[in-house]
Amino acid sequence: MDTKPLILVTNDDGITAPGIRTLISVMETLGQVVVVAPDSPQSGMGHAITVNNTLYLNKISKEDSLTQEYSCSGTPADCVKLAVNEILKRKPDLCVSGINHGSNSSINVIYSGTMSAAVEAGIEGIPAIGFSLSDFSWNANFEPLIPFVKKIAEQVLKNGLPEGTVLNVNFPKPKLGEIKGIKICRQANALWVEKFDKRQTPFGKDYYWLTGEFVNKDKGEDTDEWALSNGFAAIVPIQFDMTAHHAIQTLNSWELS
Amino acid sequence: MDTKPLILVTNDDGITAPGIRTLISVMETLGQVVVVAPDSPQSGMGHAITVNNTLYLNKISKEDSLTQEYSCSGTPADCVKLAVNEILKRKPDLCVSGINHGSNSSINVIYSGTMSAAVEAGIEGIPAIGFSLSDFSWNANFEPLIPFVKKIAEQVLKNGLPEGTVLNVNFPKPKLGEIKGIKICRQANALWVEKFDKRQTPFGKDYYWLTGEFVNKDKGEDTDEWALSNGFAAIVPIQFDMTAHHAIQTLNSWELS
Repeated sequence: MDTKPLILVTNDDGITAPGIRTLISVMETLGQVVVVAPDSPQSGMGHAITVNNTLYLNKISKEDSLTQEYSCSGTPADCVKLAVNEILKRKPDLCVSGINHGSNSSINVIYSGTMSAAVEAGIEGIPAIGFSLSDFSWNANFEPLIPFVKKIAEQVLKNGLPEGTVLNVNFPKPKLGEIKGIKICRQANALWVEKFDKRQTPFGKDYYWLTGEFVNKDKGEDTDEWALSNGFAAIVPIQFDMTAHHAIQTLNSWELS
Repeated sequence: MDTKPLILVTNDDGITAPGIRTLISVMETLGQVVVVAPDSPQSGMGHAITVNNTLYLNKISKEDSLTQEYSCSGTPADCVKLAVNEILKRKPDLCVSGINHGSNSSINVIYSGTMSAAVEAGIEGIPAIGFSLSDFSWNANFEPLIPFVKKIAEQVLKNGLPEGTVLNVNFPKPKLGEIKGIKICRQANALWVEKFDKRQTPFGKDYYWLTGEFVNKDKGEDTDEWALSNGFAAIVPIQFDMTAHHAIQTLNSWELS
């Protein structure tokens, strides 16, 4: 009987990204790994699912590989759904997503394909973690993250996660030097102030590129942004009950009848 | 000076959907309306944004129309960003999204393009409401919803919304008869149990359609699902701080150093 933990690995940068390669290598030291990841980059896909189109799965590992790998034509959330329903023989003990090339801290969690995969796993009752590095470079150095990724995954395998939560783990910019440690944080109150780059096609039609500036409005020292700017890895527990419970009382005072 | 409220209308079913037409007609009784909506259906897009592709806007209303309308090549969240940054002269007083053809209650809020537009507006500090009808039919009857949509929008224009929240408003299945009233609710603990429909292309390659069954695990009578099955419209205040604050204490007891 196989008593090794079963670990599902996915991401949103696509199955060939260096970030997921690092994540796979760490997970292989902890359990039996199955990889189901998008066949192309899916950044900014949020919690998109494919409802009006077909989905393809391609097994890309050799039959005798220890780790089985599948590429999928869909979104990160699709990958998790397909893995759980069509590939894995049992519910995995852990789902990890990433390591994303670029931060998914604070409000970025809303737009993040990496985190949508983790959230999808969480909805299905699987302990799940999304990992991201604050470096968009394809050649980012993931090496220093390895002991932290391993430690966090071990703790989740050992302790599970509070019901209805998944972990959003972000690592600081490499230029800040050695990672100083891990902080448990809340999501900072931040946003993107967009600036559209307006251009014209060669045929005279206007079009836009979405660009913008990240603005952190939150001075708290218990936020993920604070931890990251001070050289710490940030863990934010995320929930998918989006109810603003504190607002229910206010709304109940409205005249709605 | 124009003192009428400025109202941005969008959706995820696309600018030609009957649901958005109803919403526009109601909003025109409340203020100055500008419509920026996807040029094609965007259901299941979650909070996707377009980061690696160009965006197009097309003005589709006549120059002298009272209500200016634009179709956009992007997602619902893109529509809100473009409207706020490139079209509107000032921050709108209200953003409404929908009326969606199909429910966005409970866990569906996570996958919903309709709600992602409302959430995007909320992030930008605009009071926002997503409206959905529990009927996927293109020919659904939106008429009975009109007084409720108007009442809710009026209350938001009058009272604003608690900081960091937007409203997820769902209307019950038409076959349940007259809408009995409005309940302020929390998001039910529910999920989709997927079932993939596996088929073969004419060329012998496997592919999948995502299908599934909605399972409500929540017996509470304060949930949106309870309200909807009992013939009430359900308002859930939603927040985009996804931090599971209650879990921080637990995680702080872990061995992470």
